[in-house]
Amino acid sequence: MNVHRDIKLDFGRRERMGLDEAILASGKSLVHLNAILDQAAEQDARFLLTRLAPEQFHGLPEKHRARIGYDELSRTGYFGEPEPARVETRTAIIAAGTSDINVVREASRTLHWYGEPALEVTDVGVAGIWRLLERVEEIRHMPVVIVVAGMDAALPTVVGGLVPGVIIGVPSSVGYGVATGGKSALNAMLASCAAGLLVTNIDNGFGAACAALRILRAPR
Amino acid sequence: MNVHRDIKLDFGRRERMGLDEAILASGKSLVHLNAILDQAAEQDARFLLTRLAPEQFHGLPEKHRARIGYDELSRTGYFGEPEPARVETRTAIIAAGTSDINVVREASRTLHWYGEPALEVTDVGVAGIWRLLERVEEIRHMPVVIVVAGMDAALPTVVGGLVPGVIIGVPSSVGYGVATGGKSALNAMLASCAAGLLVTNIDNGFGAACAALRILRAPR
Amino acid sequence: MNVHRDIKLDFGRRERMGLDEAILASGKSLVHLNAILDQAAEQDARFLLTRLAPEQFHGLPEKHRARIGYDELSRTGYFGEPEPARVETRTAIIAAGTSDINVVREASRTLHWYGEPALEVTDVGVAGIWRLLERVEEIRHMPVVIVVAGMDAALPTVVGGLVPGVIIGVPSSVGYGVATGGKSALNAMLASCAAGLLVTNIDNGFGAACAALRILRAPR
Amino acid sequence: MNVHRDIKLDFGRRERMGLDEAILASGKSLVHLNAILDQAAEQDARFLLTRLAPEQFHGLPEKHRARIGYDELSRTGYFGEPEPARVETRTAIIAAGTSDINVVREASRTLHWYGEPALEVTDVGVAGIWRLLERVEEIRHMPVVIVVAGMDAALPTVVGGLVPGVIIGVPSSVGYGVATGGKSALNAMLASCAAGLLVTNIDNGFGAACAALRILRAPR
Amino acid sequence: MNVHRDIKLDFGRRERMGLDEAILASGKSLVHLNAILDQAAEQDARFLLTRLAPEQFHGLPEKHRARIGYDELSRTGYFGEPEPARVETRTAIIAAGTSDINVVREASRTLHWYGEPALEVTDVGVAGIWRLLERVEEIRHMPVVIVVAGMDAALPTVVGGLVPGVIIGVPSSVGYGVATGGKSALNAMLASCAAGLLVTNIDNGFGAACAALRILRAPR
Amino acid sequence: MNVHRDIKLDFGRRERMGLDEAILASGKSLVHLNAILDQAAEQDARFLLTRLAPEQFHGLPEKHRARIGYDELSRTGYFGEPEPARVETRTAIIAAGTSDINVVREASRTLHWYGEPALEVTDVGVAGIWRLLERVEEIRHMPVVIVVAGMDAALPTVVGGLVPGVIIGVPSSVGYGVATGGKSALNAMLASCAAGLLVTNIDNGFGAACAALRILRAPR
Amino acid sequence: MNVHRDIKLDFGRRERMGLDEAILASGKSLVHLNAILDQAAEQDARFLLTRLAPEQFHGLPEKHRARIGYDELSRTGYFGEPEPARVETRTAIIAAGTSDINVVREASRTLHWYGEPALEVTDVGVAGIWRLLERVEEIRHMPVVIVVAGMDAALPTVVGGLVPGVIIGVPSSVGYGVATGGKSALNAMLASCAAGLLVTNIDNGFGAACAALRILRAPR
Amino acid sequence: MNVHRDIKLDFGRRERMGLDEAILASGKSLVHLNAILDQAAEQDARFLLTRLAPEQFHGLPEKHRARIGYDELSRTGYFGEPEPARVETRTAIIAAGTSDINVVREASRTLHWYGEPALEVTDVGVAGIWRLLERVEEIRHMPVVIVVAGMDAALPTVVGGLVPGVIIGVPSSVGYGVATGGKSALNAMLASCAAGLLVTNIDNGFGAACAALRILRAPR
Repeated sequence: MNVHRDIKLDFGRRERMGLDEAILASGKSLVHLNAILDQAAEQDARFLLTRLAPEQFHGLPEKHRARIGYDELSRTGYFGEPEPARVETRTAIIAAGTSDINVVREASRTLHWYGEPALEVTDVGVAGIWRLLERVEEIRHMPVVIVVAGMDAALPTVVGGLVPGVIIGVPSSVGYGVATGGKSALNAMLASCAAGLLVTNIDNGFGAACAALRILRAPR
Repeated sequence: MNVHRDIKLDFGRRERMGLDEAILASGKSLVHLNAILDQAAEQDARFLLTRLAPEQFHGLPEKHRARIGYDELSRTGYFGEPEPARVETRTAIIAAGTSDINVVREASRTLHWYGEPALEVTDVGVAGIWRLLERVEEIRHMPVVIVVAGMDAALPTVVGGLVPGVIIGVPSSVGYGVATGGKSALNAMLASCAAGLLVTNIDNGFGAACAALRILRAPR
Repeated sequence: MNVHRDIKLDFGRRERMGLDEAILASGKSLVHLNAILDQAAEQDARFLLTRLAPEQFHGLPEKHRARIGYDELSRTGYFGEPEPARVETRTAIIAAGTSDINVVREASRTLHWYGEPALEVTDVGVAGIWRLLERVEEIRHMPVVIVVAGMDAALPTVVGGLVPGVIIGVPSSVGYGVATGGKSALNAMLASCAAGLLVTNIDNGFGAACAALRILRAPR
Repeated sequence: MNVHRDIKLDFGRRERMGLDEAILASGKSLVHLNAILDQAAEQDARFLLTRLAPEQFHGLPEKHRARIGYDELSRTGYFGEPEPARVETRTAIIAAGTSDINVVREASRTLHWYGEPALEVTDVGVAGIWRLLERVEEIRHMPVVIVVAGMDAALPTVVGGLVPGVIIGVPSSVGYGVATGGKSALNAMLASCAAGLLVTNIDNGFGAACAALRILRAPR
Repeated sequence: MNVHRDIKLDFGRRERMGLDEAILASGKSLVHLNAILDQAAEQDARFLLTRLAPEQFHGLPEKHRARIGYDELSRTGYFGEPEPARVETRTAIIAAGTSDINVVREASRTLHWYGEPALEVTDVGVAGIWRLLERVEEIRHMPVVIVVAGMDAALPTVVGGLVPGVIIGVPSSVGYGVATGGKSALNAMLASCAAGLLVTNIDNGFGAACAALRILRAPR
Repeated sequence: MNVHRDIKLDFGRRERMGLDEAILASGKSLVHLNAILDQAAEQDARFLLTRLAPEQFHGLPEKHRARIGYDELSRTGYFGEPEPARVETRTAIIAAGTSDINVVREASRTLHWYGEPALEVTDVGVAGIWRLLERVEEIRHMPVVIVVAGMDAALPTVVGGLVPGVIIGVPSSVGYGVATGGKSALNAMLASCAAGLLVTNIDNGFGAACAALRILRAPR
Repeated sequence: MNVHRDIKLDFGRRERMGLDEAILASGKSLVHLNAILDQAAEQDARFLLTRLAPEQFHGLPEKHRARIGYDELSRTGYFGEPEPARVETRTAIIAAGTSDINVVREASRTLHWYGEPALEVTDVGVAGIWRLLERVEEIRHMPVVIVVAGMDAALPTVVGGLVPGVIIGVPSSVGYGVATGGKSALNAMLASCAAGLLVTNIDNGFGAACAALRILRAPR
Repeated sequence: MNVHRDIKLDFGRRERMGLDEAILASGKSLVHLNAILDQAAEQDARFLLTRLAPEQFHGLPEKHRARIGYDELSRTGYFGEPEPARVETRTAIIAAGTSDINVVREASRTLHWYGEPALEVTDVGVAGIWRLLERVEEIRHMPVVIVVAGMDAALPTVVGGLVPGVIIGVPSSVGYGVATGGKSALNAMLASCAAGLLVTNIDNGFGAACAALRILRAPR
């Protein structure tokens, strides 16, 4: 099997639509991951790896591991250096509970890769609405607000009614019973009565960050 | 077909568990409804009719129509007189939007049948959280709070974190796309992170009222 | 029944989060619609009505009908005058087929209400990819691209890989068999491999337009 | 990563709505659990831990383990001492089979934490209806009856027709084929023809107990 | 279009497996129904028509209508004479509520066509368990018991634990919310803890009766 | 925890409805299984254990293991001796493929426990229809035919059209993609056009055998 | 509204991939249909209309109606003349029952449009397997066999095991209960154990015919 | 247990419908696999094994392992020698991403077993449409094009509009959130607006290859 034959990296993507190709590691064998990193190293490319499980990371050869800035909580890896950070923070990432932090971190690490700092605000579930109300002033001035929530996902609706920024809802798979897997949270967000709430796939912190980048960098 | 043979009203139910039998009209033919009312009239029984469509009501003979206190919005009918009303209001019925009023009214008409007054608070969806916060003091002292909500059903979670009473969530079938039919609202309520939130079937204002009556009248 | 008691319009919404309250007409009785319009007329308010069925519109009293700029295709009504139109077009609305035009028009009529012109590009389904490729240059410079698609909803993924603007996918309920109702289109959009694609509820052209407005008007 | 930054315990919850915050351990990393317990120990707080897996409990440092009254069957932990027990038993917890005992115990341990004793009645599935009928007298005088049932979940309907107390149905995930995961039991309970039956999420013994506490302690 | 070419009646079915072919009318055009009846009349065949809507029946030519013993409640038609009735009743058909009578009647009319009398016992839902217990002696001696139930479908489980005969559960589509369409009832029956409960498709009274006939007439 | 308190075996079941109680082992802890067997041993009871995993069986104390006739393929255990076998075989158990043999064996072991021999016919999937046609004569004279099939579950429909006995379809969870879990097979059986086909829960060989026993032993 | 602006017919499709564009009429307003036909008439184009409801057809202006060869059963219209018919029949279209004839006819009318004759074989459901076996010889020599089936959809599996041609399964929406809508039939076909069975969307006779044309005309 | 009794290999299948029986290993115990291979070795049969997990392969006795040409990526095994390879390549297998390669390889290994070479084209997801457009010329002349795609499965629609060959879509289970399990990809393919797209079960590379063989070898 000639593994290299199977792989065709899209190095022209940034020119075309403003974002680099990222590598989704889950579902890829070590053989394929290795081949991708070999090809990238040869061409001196840099990119973001997402859903890179600890077992996958630790199974890579030392030469690649040394090059990767790995974060276990978010399962992201930086192959190469992130862009220099802007000074101003333009994105808030809000979560209902601490169980959603891995998704929050995937979003903030993706933004960080592109030089965008992010404000993380966790543990502000609406069952204790005062926790959110205390933070509204901080959030109100952000052009983009990513809201991660599982279970009943009531948080983005409430936020959407309080601030004028773009609201990106990320349903999380946290929970049990009807909540397991994130479908209830997803549907609640899609059905939200907060006008203009936008939604990504379940646990897709990476996608939410890419959308934030499109918003912050799009032609105007 | 001897229709009377098919019907066996449960007149001893109140002795056994505190509530009278009610007649669910939807799905019953006029022939059967008539036979039930004939039998009830003979025995001088009184009861509540639910989901009685206008077409059904207007298809009944005058003698029965005259005896029924009918409300089209809630599709309920009082066959006989309701119990005398208590002075104190012990149940609040809250709804996110005016589209849920038919369910709200089904609940309040059921409570009224048993002599329980109810406070209706509508149009307090959480996308404008201030509308709810203005009314919290009024609701805080109620032993029972019924919350009707469709779409993302974020309201009961927020209410459940603000007041100590028993919260009964009633998902409504209002909405379109993933909201249609009320499944998203139902699942959001079941998955709610507000501790102790209880849920009924979709659009089941009658059931919520019966539960409220069990709470207010149960042995102690 | 005192209908006015049930209604609480949110006239402070624009101050809070930049958009006016809109009235979702579907699921509301004529009695309630009338009461809302009476209240609005008294307070000299103006707003957008969505999902206003022709039967509902024609059932309104003449005084209200005269005040409403109604469009049957999109089922939207302007109660009052739209904002003056900006010169520059900043939003493209793309659709796979002519059957999606009602959703496209709901989005463009909502944008028009807020003074935002929109470019409509219909009938560019990816089964004839050349039709889309011919229009890419026009779309590439738009900060926001709304993509309406039913059935397999392949269009937003292809567009997302071609242009740098924010992509808002609106699944439509067009189709038959597994496509009916829009669930297949919705899931395809959520699962899209185009990074940063954002999604709304099925047929929710209004929501997509509100999101576009948040993007174009958010603090920066 | 500064873990403490992520956590915001809600110590004012009891004042607001009568119940303390509880910690849902499932889905939380050991790092986060530890940080929560550290913060709680510093502030001399006490609370209930739910869904605390044996692996999680045994992974905690000795200082925290020593403080926790852990029960493996229900996966609950008491961080601190429970409230002193009332004399009178006001809640019955009924289950169809012995496979549901973990959910039953989660409910009774939660009640015990708040000083409420509970009567457990297990193995009274309705396929042998006499087992239930023998116990009805005992149950009839309880203000609250929690009914845990998986599979076809016929038990709460039968109980609801026999006793006047508040019936809280808890669907359990016991079973195989169409029963697996508890969705069939959940839907059967929601669709029940027993008037006033209330339902929680699947396996949510904790939620049922919180609801019971709201019922027993609500303002009156 | 030569309609006769499309139709191939299976007149040898009784020899092969003991039951005649029946004609499922729903989904058939009047043109096809007519062609089938013409062909049958020519060959002097007799058979049972099921799901024959009143509109279909009244749309047939007089010559066919005169030959059909039609019952609107069950939507069944006898084309020809039923078999002479046996003396002994060997099948009970039990239903939870009067809304299920159309399904009950479809089953009893099918049995009657084959000369099998049936005992109908309606309105014995388990929310009033005494109604069922009063009738147990009558049912206990039946070789076959068909149980029709919608909503939570608790009835067949209770019956299955009380009598030794074969229990055939027929879920009905009666109900609203999660009950609508009969899926909840179907799943509850399949997941039942009553050993040996067998199930048919939703509303399939005809199928249950055919199964009863297989049981009563099978080789032994 | 007093485990014995939780258990209430139903030793009177055979008198009531002709079958003994069986113990469903899956979902029971070793502690509970042991307590059940202790209680049974004391009372000299005998019963069938189903879904007894090898790990469970080998975790039991030697005194109980010695008493159990265990079969790993079907996961059944005989606690005590089966009834003496009848001479005549009255039940055929047919399966589409060898992957269904565990379900087939659960059914035949259950029948064997009650002294009923069964004919097993495996590997007669309808994609090679001749394999089934070769065996039809053998099956035609059986009063009961249990048909186990996964994937598309076409087998019971074909069998139901060929033989007059009672057909009990058991969907199996064999397969991948849309077949996984057995839902497709279940629905295909329920929707079958073979008149009088009866269905059990997925993989429920035990239930099918109990139904066969009801058929073979019911009063007549 | 300038309707013509919305429409972009794909007249180059045949050059590109061998089939003309067809017009799916369902979901299109009369205004749009008219505009499409006007545009086509101007350019002297010819094409196939599918899912053209009788109400739509009769709502067209006389000039267009006169040009369309309309068939109500299949809801297809020929705008222009079909291609001259080949002599040899290379496609069989088989259906389980007469209720599927509308789908069968949509497929044969589509083939006829392209000059391909088709053999229709209806009413050969596998519950009477002999009806199919009688016709096998006729079918065995066809390069393509389209099999339309609803309910349990057992027919394509049996056919797939008997003949060597390409089998295209078309699930139909015929049936009730779990069969309604065709999902059960679709899943049964996808899960079929007949190797190499291919499947289309529910009721998609048009798609099956297009696939047959690709097979019969593809480069070789 | 006599395992051989359970197995009935279908050695006449090629004569009947052109393809040999293949053995689906998943779900089969080692005991059964061994018995099948023993029987095959005795009769000097050769066949393809699919879904043969590495654990299964390595658990076989050396004599069978030696005879099997095993490929771990596709989980296929050749028991015996493949047919001699044709010169001309008539099938292309296209995949959106490298995560789909196991399905691609299952298809190409199945074709190889029958002597059909295949062109593999991977990593041409439509989010970078140029990658596909570069390869169109190569694909355009293939009679059969198998397209494997997960997530939103937009690839087959685009391909179907570009080339005239038969398009066989194989949904893959790659992805997370709503994509997991392949249902979204499956539905998107079934709902595709590309005329004549045919679909197999999820991950069914084997089935797609069998269909390709039917197409390439069918009578003409």
